[in-house]
Amino acid sequence: MTLYYSVLIIGGGLIGSSLARAIKANELADRIYIADVDSKACGVLRTLDIADGVSADFRDFIGLADLVILATPPGVMKSIGAGVVEGMKSGGVLTDVGSIKLDIVRHFSTFMRSDLHFIPGHPIAGTENSGPAAGFAELFEERWCILTPVEGSDESEVARLSELWEKMGSQVALMEAERHDMVLATTSHVPHLIAYTLVGTAMDMETVTRNDVVKYSAGGFRDFTRIAASDPEMWRDVFLQNKDGVLEVVDRFIEDLSALKRAIRWDDGDTLLSHFSKTRDIRRKIIDAGQDTDKPDFGRE
Amino acid sequence: MTLYYSVLIIGGGLIGSSLARAIKANELADRIYIADVDSKACGVLRTLDIADGVSADFRDFIGLADLVILATPPGVMKSIGAGVVEGMKSGGVLTDVGSIKLDIVRHFSTFMRSDLHFIPGHPIAGTENSGPAAGFAELFEERWCILTPVEGSDESEVARLSELWEKMGSQVALMEAERHDMVLATTSHVPHLIAYTLVGTAMDMETVTRNDVVKYSAGGFRDFTRIAASDPEMWRDVFLQNKDGVLEVVDRFIEDLSALKRAIRWDDGDTLLSHFSKTRDIRRKIIDAGQDTDKPDFGRE
Repeated sequence: MTLYYSVLIIGGGLIGSSLARAIKANELADRIYIADVDSKACGVLRTLDIADGVSADFRDFIGLADLVILATPPGVMKSIGAGVVEGMKSGGVLTDVGSIKLDIVRHFSTFMRSDLHFIPGHPIAGTENSGPAAGFAELFEERWCILTPVEGSDESEVARLSELWEKMGSQVALMEAERHDMVLATTSHVPHLIAYTLVGTAMDMETVTRNDVVKYSAGGFRDFTRIAASDPEMWRDVFLQNKDGVLEVVDRFIEDLSALKRAIRWDDGDTLLSHFSKTRDIRRKIIDAGQDTDKPDFGRE
Repeated sequence: MTLYYSVLIIGGGLIGSSLARAIKANELADRIYIADVDSKACGVLRTLDIADGVSADFRDFIGLADLVILATPPGVMKSIGAGVVEGMKSGGVLTDVGSIKLDIVRHFSTFMRSDLHFIPGHPIAGTENSGPAAGFAELFEERWCILTPVEGSDESEVARLSELWEKMGSQVALMEAERHDMVLATTSHVPHLIAYTLVGTAMDMETVTRNDVVKYSAGGFRDFTRIAASDPEMWRDVFLQNKDGVLEVVDRFIEDLSALKRAIRWDDGDTLLSHFSKTRDIRRKIIDAGQDTDKPDFGRE
């Protein structure tokens, strides 16, 4: 038994195309449609043979879908949101895979219809690669997916959407949108901002050539370049839409960095050592929780 | 033909024990001795069977060695340096594997003997693991090793030491100690400082639990924890000994981060997008240069 008859995925990039693959591989829907405004992406999606229909215009499928999944950059979700909601059939479920939840919830609440079920979501999965060809069915396995249902959401629809994610291999957590955004500011958004910043700083040093940076990157720098190679457009949207959470965590980070800087300047080795010793423990816990690597055969380039 | 008759490695941790393994595997010396003040480490080193002699006291072997390699934390190198130099036999070569060069060069110049060859070195290789059991013979393969010979160094001895590294699989670069330290501040030291800082910031958030941080670390955070799990004592020494280089790069980083923070606060998406787009290119170059991963079978846990 499939979970939904007809699913429309809007946005066929890394996440959207992986969703189509995973839904197909696990037989979770009878019909899978993908819409992507990029005609080149549509061409790739057609050759991949992971959908029953591919179009540049979501309106071609929107009236058919029992489940609509928004998998575009967050900024695009907001600009097409009203049209998506307007076109959906009564009783349909609308979800998304965006990295910020509060901003989307607020925006969609201004035009949401009472005969639809809106259940925002966010799979904590991804690789540094983007585009439809980069996707794979196993992307969500052993990864967390956070759903942030609004007050009064239909429990059976939340359960059905949770089951979809679980059948694709994820563990599902339910939490409020506001809490989600602060957790993700800490574990994802600010790490990305810092990585982007550091790679830029290194590129602009006059005393160190770009060739040096590349050659000697195995000393630690390369881990930052991996993160800083992520989709620029998506991350611009993320930072602007989770502004409050990101700025709060960044300010604390700068405070903490300034304290360590001061310890270095004043030769305060004890402060450094005690700080560096406590951070080891978290690494061990991440390894124990199985969150330390991408899928061995897929996620790493 | 071996390159050296007798080699003494002082410090039998990840790097020191990997050196012993690589020298043995590639038959680069007739005799390999390891000294490590930690008696537990000595026990492990003996069971590994990678040396002809293991002792807690380097004085047991120092008079025998044609090549002495200092592979202790940088702080220890400075405290034992005078005793090492005093005990070496005439004509011997002294090198090290420390992450900072200028501070060591200055310190050792105060007691260096004119009948020894002092050729500081730094292999850009390592993993997050430490201790003798974590080492492996392939650690230096396809990695850069920087040598910073002082003015007037014997060219044939620099060539012989370069050959040792090349036979272990490394590429050798020669540069001045000062330049080395600025390059490494950028590609290694500041990335580590930032990773240590961010992991600490996340641990101290009141609104985000440590359990959250572990669960959702796949969003970017886990790459920082990998770096922030490195040996705390070694990194304390690194930051204190490359103080000028580290503080210069950190100050620039904070400036750049503040500029991006300001762009977020003022909704300046264009500044963010143009910054994020330029950093992708470096990642591609690192992949092309083969510096993007540790050894597939060893370096990753």
